[in-house]
Amino acid sequence: MVITFLSDFGLEDDFVGTCHGVIKRIAPETDVIDITHGIDPQNILQGALVLANTLPYMPEGVHFAVVDPDVGTPRRALVLRTGDGRLLVGPDNGLLLPASERVGGIQAAYEITNRRYALESVSPTFHGRDVFSPAAAHLALGLDPAELGDAIPADQLIRLEIPEAEIGERRIRATCLYVDRYGNIQLNLTAGQVEPLGVVPGRQIEVELTMDRFYALAARTFAEARPGEIVLYEDAYRNIALAISRGNAAETFGVRPGTEVRLRVESA
Amino acid sequence: MVITFLSDFGLEDDFVGTCHGVIKRIAPETDVIDITHGIDPQNILQGALVLANTLPYMPEGVHFAVVDPDVGTPRRALVLRTGDGRLLVGPDNGLLLPASERVGGIQAAYEITNRRYALESVSPTFHGRDVFSPAAAHLALGLDPAELGDAIPADQLIRLEIPEAEIGERRIRATCLYVDRYGNIQLNLTAGQVEPLGVVPGRQIEVELTMDRFYALAARTFAEARPGEIVLYEDAYRNIALAISRGNAAETFGVRPGTEVRLRVESA
Amino acid sequence: MVITFLSDFGLEDDFVGTCHGVIKRIAPETDVIDITHGIDPQNILQGALVLANTLPYMPEGVHFAVVDPDVGTPRRALVLRTGDGRLLVGPDNGLLLPASERVGGIQAAYEITNRRYALESVSPTFHGRDVFSPAAAHLALGLDPAELGDAIPADQLIRLEIPEAEIGERRIRATCLYVDRYGNIQLNLTAGQVEPLGVVPGRQIEVELTMDRFYALAARTFAEARPGEIVLYEDAYRNIALAISRGNAAETFGVRPGTEVRLRVESA
Repeated sequence: MVITFLSDFGLEDDFVGTCHGVIKRIAPETDVIDITHGIDPQNILQGALVLANTLPYMPEGVHFAVVDPDVGTPRRALVLRTGDGRLLVGPDNGLLLPASERVGGIQAAYEITNRRYALESVSPTFHGRDVFSPAAAHLALGLDPAELGDAIPADQLIRLEIPEAEIGERRIRATCLYVDRYGNIQLNLTAGQVEPLGVVPGRQIEVELTMDRFYALAARTFAEARPGEIVLYEDAYRNIALAISRGNAAETFGVRPGTEVRLRVESA
Repeated sequence: MVITFLSDFGLEDDFVGTCHGVIKRIAPETDVIDITHGIDPQNILQGALVLANTLPYMPEGVHFAVVDPDVGTPRRALVLRTGDGRLLVGPDNGLLLPASERVGGIQAAYEITNRRYALESVSPTFHGRDVFSPAAAHLALGLDPAELGDAIPADQLIRLEIPEAEIGERRIRATCLYVDRYGNIQLNLTAGQVEPLGVVPGRQIEVELTMDRFYALAARTFAEARPGEIVLYEDAYRNIALAISRGNAAETFGVRPGTEVRLRVESA
Repeated sequence: MVITFLSDFGLEDDFVGTCHGVIKRIAPETDVIDITHGIDPQNILQGALVLANTLPYMPEGVHFAVVDPDVGTPRRALVLRTGDGRLLVGPDNGLLLPASERVGGIQAAYEITNRRYALESVSPTFHGRDVFSPAAAHLALGLDPAELGDAIPADQLIRLEIPEAEIGERRIRATCLYVDRYGNIQLNLTAGQVEPLGVVPGRQIEVELTMDRFYALAARTFAEARPGEIVLYEDAYRNIALAISRGNAAETFGVRPGTEVRLRVESA
């Protein structure tokens, strides 16, 4: 069975490799797919959104995610079984919930407490290695999640607050959720939310960012625009995003996750 | 069958992991080798040169590469069959051609148009996930490339201009092609081009970089030189390169890909 | 059989991917686990410590490590057989020794000289690709290490000097060994060394760093502390470390590997 793995561990240290080692000692035949380990350190919301975006593209299996600033405190460790039969493993801090909603919702939740399926010595700071990796590996071998600990009602799980855009008749006040390597700025907006205001390919949209104000072209893709042109488009995960064709929008405008972005659609 | 994968996606985002997921959903038994995802964003030439350098070291299989600033425009998606039986998959922007020349040349080329082998929904900005990954996975399962689309003549494929060095009797005007993590500066020169001018191990060579001028020691390897010494040597991919023994040449001299580097060999 | 792989190659270039390719051409069924490739360029000590920390978590197999500033000089290439039956492959510069001591010590050592198990053409600057990867792959296929070259006495291997802390009655002069992605500062100290001085969870410890002086809380884990509080704790590899709860200690205090860190325990 496949295990997918997402974290904020980065690849400069050994944290990811060590988890792979622990998994392979227990379940040598398992294939581990690294979704990404580039989540900003301790940014649970970002981890949750990236996991939700990508899980539908992953083979069904065990899906292990760690962004865990509260490791070592009594925060719970979880396994969730989803409607489409996946098993999600990670801390109870909201990280797993948006993703489970994309793959059939939570069918059952268990708290991981059975030390029989953890490493012999559990450090207070690296549950990724000592608790989550062995749990994921045993689940991939077919362990019933109920063996890991008691069931807990889904409504007792910790949920994240996901910032919501304010949408008026002509104006939208949105938030940057994510900036990717190309500097494209993902907003907390979907096409379904902006189309009723007239944000459709070909339209000029006024954008306000901190002190800057400029026009963006609503387009199907940034490659349609002239180099240097600012583009508002639906990205590959169906969020509305801002880009500069052949450029880096986030760097140019100094935008980071959490930055407010205001859009204004002029009367047609 | 093995799939190799090279891109400018970086590893901070989920792009690489998502492509792995798509491949494994279609072809679970396939082994995916990541050549690198550290190509500078949208730098097609760099991607093409790294792919050409590394492909001979890869097992024969399906070789999938994405550096694709024109994704979403009508640029073609390609499969190439090479003389040694490899299948190369990627955009028609020159990225695949230098590599195919190293492994037997292009025997056949096909445009990928058959939507049956793409994901159900194809986004205009992420063909790596929606078109190339599924095509690579189906090819790894044994799909005949002619099933993906019509054959196209090899001479209609887009080619890159690779900067060529000017070589005089005593002087060479070269260009930095690539800088690696150690700061070693790869030039568009081979030993065969510089040896006739007398650039042989043991010789002092004058090097001019922007405003700097200094002497480098032509050597078999940088480790032969004293720490801090500047060395001109043939690198592991048979390009002439500049290094500082135990130091970082690119950082010291402010050289980046594209920087002009002039060499002068004094009379013996 | 599993091959693990640790290096200072980084992931921006193709070095790691190319080694994977070479291994898979020789031993297609082998599973390669990347421990990390984020060791600071040419930092042998850091590579040795990370390998020693992580090897016990890896499945028994062939363990291949490259931090090799002297590649191309007559430094030896090694295979070590350890007490627990692992095979370690890498340069003779001290890199492999701390790790072998954690897994049963060196039972036998061989110099790799047999060109039959190297690539046909061996470049002077990339033995990772041309010598170590093929050796590791052949060992994973079951090759007797004695086939690679002559045995050498373990006491002739090159050893690293690992900085040792000076421990007084109330004062400790330690060195930063490593800084991880979260900015946690690993010291060359163990709990066994600091407990006799009264460094136990709950205690305030005075810390001196270059020009700064402040108090840290000795704690079981940084998550127990208030956000922003400085914490001294035993990390997941059983080293004493300094962190800022929910912050980045190394960045805040300007600490890097090699920085001296002084601790003072006040009388109880």
